[in-house]
Amino acid sequence: MARSWATLGVDLHLEPSGSGGLRRGLTDALRDAVRTGRLAPGTRLPSSRSLAADLGIARNTVAEAYADLVAEGWLTARQGSGTRVATGTPTPPGTAPTAPHRTPARPRHDLIPGTPDLAAFPRTEWLKATRRALATAPFHALGYGDPRGRPELRTALAGYLARARGVRTGPDTIVVTAGFSHALTILGKVLRARGVRTVAVESYGLDVHWALLRGAGLATPALPYDGLGTDPREPGEAGAVLLTPAHQFPMGTPLHPDRRAAVVAWARRTGGLVLEDDYDGEFRYDRQPVGALQGLAPDRVVYLGTASKSLAPGLRLGWMALPPDLAAEAVSAKGQADTVGVLEQLTLAEFLTSGAYDRHVRSSRLRYRRRRDALTAAVTTRAPEVRVTGIAAGLHAVLRLPPGTEESVVQAAAWQNLALHGLSAHRHPQAVTDPLDALVVGYGTPPDSAWAAALEALCRVLP
Amino acid sequence: MARSWATLGVDLHLEPSGSGGLRRGLTDALRDAVRTGRLAPGTRLPSSRSLAADLGIARNTVAEAYADLVAEGWLTARQGSGTRVATGTPTPPGTAPTAPHRTPARPRHDLIPGTPDLAAFPRTEWLKATRRALATAPFHALGYGDPRGRPELRTALAGYLARARGVRTGPDTIVVTAGFSHALTILGKVLRARGVRTVAVESYGLDVHWALLRGAGLATPALPYDGLGTDPREPGEAGAVLLTPAHQFPMGTPLHPDRRAAVVAWARRTGGLVLEDDYDGEFRYDRQPVGALQGLAPDRVVYLGTASKSLAPGLRLGWMALPPDLAAEAVSAKGQADTVGVLEQLTLAEFLTSGAYDRHVRSSRLRYRRRRDALTAAVTTRAPEVRVTGIAAGLHAVLRLPPGTEESVVQAAAWQNLALHGLSAHRHPQAVTDPLDALVVGYGTPPDSAWAAALEALCRVLP
Repeated sequence: MARSWATLGVDLHLEPSGSGGLRRGLTDALRDAVRTGRLAPGTRLPSSRSLAADLGIARNTVAEAYADLVAEGWLTARQGSGTRVATGTPTPPGTAPTAPHRTPARPRHDLIPGTPDLAAFPRTEWLKATRRALATAPFHALGYGDPRGRPELRTALAGYLARARGVRTGPDTIVVTAGFSHALTILGKVLRARGVRTVAVESYGLDVHWALLRGAGLATPALPYDGLGTDPREPGEAGAVLLTPAHQFPMGTPLHPDRRAAVVAWARRTGGLVLEDDYDGEFRYDRQPVGALQGLAPDRVVYLGTASKSLAPGLRLGWMALPPDLAAEAVSAKGQADTVGVLEQLTLAEFLTSGAYDRHVRSSRLRYRRRRDALTAAVTTRAPEVRVTGIAAGLHAVLRLPPGTEESVVQAAAWQNLALHGLSAHRHPQAVTDPLDALVVGYGTPPDSAWAAALEALCRVLP
Repeated sequence: MARSWATLGVDLHLEPSGSGGLRRGLTDALRDAVRTGRLAPGTRLPSSRSLAADLGIARNTVAEAYADLVAEGWLTARQGSGTRVATGTPTPPGTAPTAPHRTPARPRHDLIPGTPDLAAFPRTEWLKATRRALATAPFHALGYGDPRGRPELRTALAGYLARARGVRTGPDTIVVTAGFSHALTILGKVLRARGVRTVAVESYGLDVHWALLRGAGLATPALPYDGLGTDPREPGEAGAVLLTPAHQFPMGTPLHPDRRAAVVAWARRTGGLVLEDDYDGEFRYDRQPVGALQGLAPDRVVYLGTASKSLAPGLRLGWMALPPDLAAEAVSAKGQADTVGVLEQLTLAEFLTSGAYDRHVRSSRLRYRRRRDALTAAVTTRAPEVRVTGIAAGLHAVLRLPPGTEESVVQAAAWQNLALHGLSAHRHPQAVTDPLDALVVGYGTPPDSAWAAALEALCRVLP
């Protein structure tokens, strides 16, 4: 085999039939591949030289078969673009729209909470970091990896989390995950294996998280919620509590200082664990964010972070800082096949160590702070019965509505093709606190170009 | 807040103590962060201007606190590199080497099967594809995605698999996964939910795959193995069979043509499923590879592919082409949080559609073919009692040894720091076929620069 044909061209799988000679067999096999739709219209075929070498037959035989099929209309041949499957040939049966999971149409105005402004993703800086990661990674980094994640990333995260969030950890007690849900799935398995039966969760939160824990066989009763926010002081029989201490999701208040101390005391007293969901801890606009609860008790708190709010959910990158004994169990539960791509991990490590992460977070803070200010001003002026609540932080705000109006406002928004959440969608089914009428507005979600129109649409549906 | 300080600099979490004045409180908090090791030696601190703005205090107060701590030796200040934590300060408690999962030292000669030559990963081409993916992706592609994977990648895979492997599928029946193990984990859940209790596996294979199925609650009895290879004709009570039809792993033979037809007939007759592990189907050196079994029965065969052998395991990219009814169940089992990074998916889609994938596969074929030829020649000359078996394909070969010698040869290899597998490591514990003495040699694993020495080390330990 000469290098020329072997490395150029494309692969084409064919099973020429035996009878009728080589040319006939090849023509039949090619026609069949096109007719049944296996080769889609527009597919480029290998050159006759390359296919002949692959099949171990004479080049002329392939050229003649191609010519026959061009004559029959199955293929087209053009100078410079080679031989392709003609358009107008059938599409394969599997491509019929059988799929039950169509991507839903995007709304005209998107204020669904939980996503940052994806149009502001730092593409140029991310590409630079990818280039540096690809240029410097040792070749064996591309193999099956350490299930905890790449050491470069764990080291960078340990430094960043300590500096920016007050987390007390090191590279050996960090586990890289494919986002928060992956981390919570792992923790569910670990807790269940330890004999935990119950993880207390907040009265307001995300039902997909509760469902992940229930999927691991854990009960998820609701912690009380009162005028001071979540009350985790008496989690009953729970072996762990899941909290959003820096910025309660979705209510938007930090965990009360007395209760921070109390939940740590509970964990120490009972051997319980606190799962700290620090989903948007970087984004506080009026003062420095509250430090991670984990800093108070690194032996009793699992710190969970994610790139989904600070960069983009599509990266599928998250991390846990764990007590040392739990780190080993989490790695076992995760399994040996590391589910996070090495190149993404190395790129994030570069992004953190080069300072690009801090720069992006700090410029995002300005963007979201301006939006929050604009939201507050617009609501104050145009809907005086509505109140923006929660601290100046994060990517969403809770808008308190007059009693009994939530359902009709959410319905009015849907008619305007404005996507947002009513607070009741985030209320635990067994919460004992009185239901409140409110909207959860993700002001971080739209791109800059769509923000003003989304805010205007929101104001139009407010009572 | 002016843009200048807000977007420059880095975040530093501090909780200045209240007593003794601002300067004293800040100095104490900073000293404490360094002394306890939360801020690691070498960590760069924000500029005094930036930190002062973040904390809402006078710049001079920060500058004085920095100066105090430089004087005390906790910090260092150098023109041009800013203020940093001094080296020689303590490391945090969490960074002590407590971890039970140390990355094992790499062997001097690595012939472990299952990994391609990672030094040949096409870094430049991959970066180009990443650049194109980042330049063209719509912003909303960076959000929480379709659990089946990005449509661009599923479309590219459907075209490639049809053209190169004879797979009959479409974008709607493909599910992107984080590698083969992730796909098998999903299938285990789907089969168990369908009421399947047993998945028959081959007498030779990978115990980690069998363990994944058992983890889903499935029994994994061994199919017979005879002179013609795996015999899947009578899988007993099994609801599915897991096979490597193009190139049995590790034995290295394709599934016998009669048995290909027979297992499809069994699946049609009983409603059973065939799980086709096409881990290295692209790599055949003497003729075109056998087409995918899936092409014979797209309604009864799940085709499983991976980028782990054709590119690198570190990418964590795999795919399944499923019967339409199973596709919906697999998506449910996978869960809504897509565990595969969007940028890696878009990059692979670019890599496939640009032809870079075909080019890389075809040049890899030349590399591995040369190595296989060199291996066969060396063994024939230097160890005439040893026989290289299996077809000219893939990234590994089975070397049959004189009876009773496997254990001592594997031991001799370990003494030479030569890593390879004995065949017994891949034998199903309930296999009824007679044990064979053999080595499984991953000739694809070392970089070009290490291949000759690895081959020489291998020849030295052969009987």
